[in-house]
Amino acid sequence: MLQNQGREMMIVTSGAVAFGKQRLRHEILLSQSVRQALHSGQNQLKDMSLPVLEARACAAAGQSGLMALYEAMFTQYSTCTAQVLVTNLDFHDDQKRQNLNSTLQELLRMNIVPIINTNDAVVPPPEPNSDLQGVNVISIKDNDSLAARLAVEMKADLLIALSDVEGLYNSPPGTDDAKLIDIFYPGDQLSITYGTKSRVGIGGMEAKVKAAIWALQGGTSVVIANGTHPKVTGHVITDIVEGKKVGTFFSEIKPAGPSVEQQTEMARNSGRSLASLHPDQRSEIICHLAELLTERKEDILAANKVDMDQAVCAGHLPPAMLKRLSLSPAKLNSLAIGLRQIAVLAQDSVGRVLRRTRVAHNLELEQITIPIGVLLVIFEARPDCLPQVSALAIASGNALLLKGGKEAANTNRVLHQITQEALTMHGVREAVQLVSTREEVEDLCRLDKMIDLIIPRGSSKLVRDIQRAAKGIPVLGHSEGICHVYVDADASVDKVVKIVRDSKCDYPAACNAMETLLIHRDLLRTPLFDQIIDMLRNERVKIYAGPRFASYLTFSPSEAKSLRVEYGDLECCMEVVDSMQEAVDHIHKYGSSHTDVIVTENESTAEQFLQQLDSACVFWNASSRFADGYRFGLGAEVGISTARIHARGPVGLEGLLTTKWVLRGNGHTAADFSENGTMKYLHENLPVGQSLPGQRDSN
Amino acid sequence: MLQNQGREMMIVTSGAVAFGKQRLRHEILLSQSVRQALHSGQNQLKDMSLPVLEARACAAAGQSGLMALYEAMFTQYSTCTAQVLVTNLDFHDDQKRQNLNSTLQELLRMNIVPIINTNDAVVPPPEPNSDLQGVNVISIKDNDSLAARLAVEMKADLLIALSDVEGLYNSPPGTDDAKLIDIFYPGDQLSITYGTKSRVGIGGMEAKVKAAIWALQGGTSVVIANGTHPKVTGHVITDIVEGKKVGTFFSEIKPAGPSVEQQTEMARNSGRSLASLHPDQRSEIICHLAELLTERKEDILAANKVDMDQAVCAGHLPPAMLKRLSLSPAKLNSLAIGLRQIAVLAQDSVGRVLRRTRVAHNLELEQITIPIGVLLVIFEARPDCLPQVSALAIASGNALLLKGGKEAANTNRVLHQITQEALTMHGVREAVQLVSTREEVEDLCRLDKMIDLIIPRGSSKLVRDIQRAAKGIPVLGHSEGICHVYVDADASVDKVVKIVRDSKCDYPAACNAMETLLIHRDLLRTPLFDQIIDMLRNERVKIYAGPRFASYLTFSPSEAKSLRVEYGDLECCMEVVDSMQEAVDHIHKYGSSHTDVIVTENESTAEQFLQQLDSACVFWNASSRFADGYRFGLGAEVGISTARIHARGPVGLEGLLTTKWVLRGNGHTAADFSENGTMKYLHENLPVGQSLPGQRDSN
Repeated sequence: MLQNQGREMMIVTSGAVAFGKQRLRHEILLSQSVRQALHSGQNQLKDMSLPVLEARACAAAGQSGLMALYEAMFTQYSTCTAQVLVTNLDFHDDQKRQNLNSTLQELLRMNIVPIINTNDAVVPPPEPNSDLQGVNVISIKDNDSLAARLAVEMKADLLIALSDVEGLYNSPPGTDDAKLIDIFYPGDQLSITYGTKSRVGIGGMEAKVKAAIWALQGGTSVVIANGTHPKVTGHVITDIVEGKKVGTFFSEIKPAGPSVEQQTEMARNSGRSLASLHPDQRSEIICHLAELLTERKEDILAANKVDMDQAVCAGHLPPAMLKRLSLSPAKLNSLAIGLRQIAVLAQDSVGRVLRRTRVAHNLELEQITIPIGVLLVIFEARPDCLPQVSALAIASGNALLLKGGKEAANTNRVLHQITQEALTMHGVREAVQLVSTREEVEDLCRLDKMIDLIIPRGSSKLVRDIQRAAKGIPVLGHSEGICHVYVDADASVDKVVKIVRDSKCDYPAACNAMETLLIHRDLLRTPLFDQIIDMLRNERVKIYAGPRFASYLTFSPSEAKSLRVEYGDLECCMEVVDSMQEAVDHIHKYGSSHTDVIVTENESTAEQFLQQLDSACVFWNASSRFADGYRFGLGAEVGISTARIHARGPVGLEGLLTTKWVLRGNGHTAADFSENGTMKYLHENLPVGQSLPGQRDSN
Repeated sequence: MLQNQGREMMIVTSGAVAFGKQRLRHEILLSQSVRQALHSGQNQLKDMSLPVLEARACAAAGQSGLMALYEAMFTQYSTCTAQVLVTNLDFHDDQKRQNLNSTLQELLRMNIVPIINTNDAVVPPPEPNSDLQGVNVISIKDNDSLAARLAVEMKADLLIALSDVEGLYNSPPGTDDAKLIDIFYPGDQLSITYGTKSRVGIGGMEAKVKAAIWALQGGTSVVIANGTHPKVTGHVITDIVEGKKVGTFFSEIKPAGPSVEQQTEMARNSGRSLASLHPDQRSEIICHLAELLTERKEDILAANKVDMDQAVCAGHLPPAMLKRLSLSPAKLNSLAIGLRQIAVLAQDSVGRVLRRTRVAHNLELEQITIPIGVLLVIFEARPDCLPQVSALAIASGNALLLKGGKEAANTNRVLHQITQEALTMHGVREAVQLVSTREEVEDLCRLDKMIDLIIPRGSSKLVRDIQRAAKGIPVLGHSEGICHVYVDADASVDKVVKIVRDSKCDYPAACNAMETLLIHRDLLRTPLFDQIIDMLRNERVKIYAGPRFASYLTFSPSEAKSLRVEYGDLECCMEVVDSMQEAVDHIHKYGSSHTDVIVTENESTAEQFLQQLDSACVFWNASSRFADGYRFGLGAEVGISTARIHARGPVGLEGLLTTKWVLRGNGHTAADFSENGTMKYLHENLPVGQSLPGQRDSN
């Protein structure tokens, strides 16, 4: 496949004895099954416990079958293969090396994939005190160095060495502090602790690294990755070729900034200090940030102009996105006003006592609010998000990783500098980190041990992609807003027309806009019905008919492809229901639990609807557009969540908080309360006061 | 691999033209790559747009390469293959059929895998008005029926037909109501709507189903599954062979009970009625359940005796598990008492108003508690869990799926019957469902659109397995409890000894037991230190030394393998720290955010510790064993959560609740509040009253 894409590749294989290692010029794809097959072959050989010397004979015997397999595999892609057997000695002799080089070049030029292997049948016998024992004795080491030598010899761009671990760790994998190294710089070599030789594959890592560094010095980049991992089956090589973060990448050039892991670590540590500040101090930081937005207006707008010019030049941004990308003095002003409101909310967020119980004499329990930890907020080309989200994180004492759209890179950089400047006033500069635009969202979602909550701010596509990628990290948000307005038989004409118009037309792209209009059957062919249709026509709303609605009409509008569509535009679906109950069932079946509305004058019907529907927002005689943190009076809006746990619906600052339980005793033990113990549980509720004593005098 | 496990298998392949379909006697493994290779081959052919007739020539040409590929693949597993080409006509001639049959039997007897294909070069030309057009014209249909015929002819146990969709859907995949059918009974055939022929693979499903039913009638079971899905790469066939729920299984026998999907649906519907009841009614159900536990004592204990006898007979259950499995009149009594306490809590759970705001004149907003939806509770061989968890679900208005350990199957069945009897008094019998012990936890975790929260109750291994399996469904629980006690330099001797003993020895298997004891450096070689060591020795606690602790001692206990171990037994790790701050850093690094304790007489140090540490529970001068819902005074304990969102630490009934926002207006629209509008936001906080008006008169 890669070959057919015009990539040149070579494969260094370990024969029928050891596990497959591949090597390529530019890039390579070799399907997992070959490796599995080889692996299995290896195990079978192991079971037979061949003595060391015979392993070479065995490799020779396996060679023909192996070549047949490669040939058959590549034939399926209409690709020819060639077998090349070499020994280390071939490299020592200049003439031989030149011959090998030109042979390989010729093969590649002819679009033939060389399958290279050590000529195991003729290599010298292994040294008796070799550190590798057993059937694997040939070539494990040889293949790594062979691949490295060939890579350099052939001036390859990339060498991929496949292992049975994820890549290079700073300590032996499985120990307490072992961390996978994403990018390895030769200067870092001393920071690695290699494992003992007790486990196969770990002992081999040192040799791999040596070979890799050798190749790197020769001008070939190297990736060491896991070729056996079932999750990446068949993808590991293509993933590497596509530039995804897999395994350990060996690089000569050390980038200027810290890695995203280091940034997360810095954010968490600094965030803990932020959480320890007095609420007033967090407010001060936010107010200072608001001031800086005005003071540094010129810098910000200049950076924004660079982004705008580039975007206009590139010409691919739609006008709506350009509008969102652009900042103005007025936008910065209202942003500063919003920030000052958040500063006020910051006074009463972290350290609030939610519950206080006297568990027993001298044993008091408090449940208090604390920050969640490290937030990752991913937003699109909308730079005003940055100070706003930063203020929310600061107010709630959370560390923050920001990942913004690359279109706003210059503006974001300046805004982030200002944010860090504000944070510096209380020594927590690193609590807010701006992640490089090079980082992939997918890679960030891998940091599940380091990030506690992801908040995507952007299109529903962005949210859906992140929900899919974020395995193990909770995501606060909503991917869909399929909102319904149900017009009951007892609805008032005026209210219906007003509410339906506002729900659909006030801002059709919003998630809280109406997508499906449900109408009670009795209303068909009534003046009310005609008024709704006239209004929608006047507003140029395109109507799609649900199947029942279509069946009632002689000439129906085009049928809705699905009753579960978020149009996000001046379009909506209309469907007929027999009763309030049927409306509820319809919404439960096709809705997204975002916001649903009933219009009726019958209070009993309304209350039934409000009670039965389990959407995040249920409204009676009010537009769906009220589903919004500001309109709800929550102050700052973190987002709208359609999840069923934690925060739900429009989420204010409290969505960024969790709790902990603080128990203060005087040497109390559980045994004191046992049958023969001296103490009794009281469990008295105590009035909740203000913040904790420790809150005030810390830091 | 399967072949080597003693399975007999045959492969029906679609040649070089169409996509691979395999067929087996007993079972088969064919690695994904072959199919990919074939698939790619097909695409290449498509690109060349061969006319219909030439496709057959092409298939003949591809045949040899294909066989070479199969042969090479199987050679790696030391397995021989044989090529068998057949046409439909071969089945019409009795003599030919017998010949084929005995050839295949002979090959299987010789442990050779027959690779069977239609003899495309000699089959009659396709009919001009065939519904399948293009290069795929040969064999798509033929291979399904060929496989079915061969399966029946050879009396195969299982036929696996691989497709490019997940299996059989009740409607064309992608439409609103399309649901994958797990098990298909021939009688159900009429309930399927097939798609139009517009998409490749959907049109083919009807033919596949026909072939499958034909095979089923002939006595061969059939599975239709996706052979192209990247997630199941290389696993689909082995998964099927291992009996996992993959694709659609065709079966003659319809099981007596509903499927787990149907059970979930029933639970959700009935749960919605449960949520609509008045809180008093939910209390009544729970009280009735408590009564039935006493009334039906004999039935319950008789069923429990059956389980106990079987467990003793089987002899593999450890004594602690047997103790948990067994019920007694006393256990039932205390269970009933616990249930009555939950009944009291039920009065004030669902429908509680948390916040009330006057958004504007005549526009009032309420945030009220509602059930989460459908809970899945997985518990091990501990039948008293069942009524307890059911009561918690009923109290919080949630629907419940219960999955209990198979050792308690008989007891669970009786307890579930009683629970449903209690639910019947208010017409919500189906809100609590007992899932068959046959269902795999993994399969239940697949129901992510139907289940809102999973609560595992059992060993930390169970919890970890479920957290891993439950992709997309939140899990309430904790997999680890690595709790620390930090003994500060200013600690009181008496309190230290008392608290450390209780934390470690009161119940070492509990998640809130101490695992690591951190000691301030100044305490080394003091009387306090000796007293701690003496106490631990007396209690027979095995001590492991952390690296720093070991370095301070001449003769150290054996070194801890990791500082991140949950011993769950009379064992613990000891480590030395320089300061309270270092203790906090150690706990943040190695702890599991469960429960951590400081013992000190210095209030300022204590408050710093309580404030800085972000564990779910942080204690001062009290045993870690207090981290428990009952001891905290929460009433019923749902579990202990170490998650950072939703509920945290010991979780009471409120962990089973979420909220919704109810807005009551009078025709209000967002436009009314715009710059030119007539209304102003008030956002007045109103006092929160009791439950909603709708709450009282519904149902």
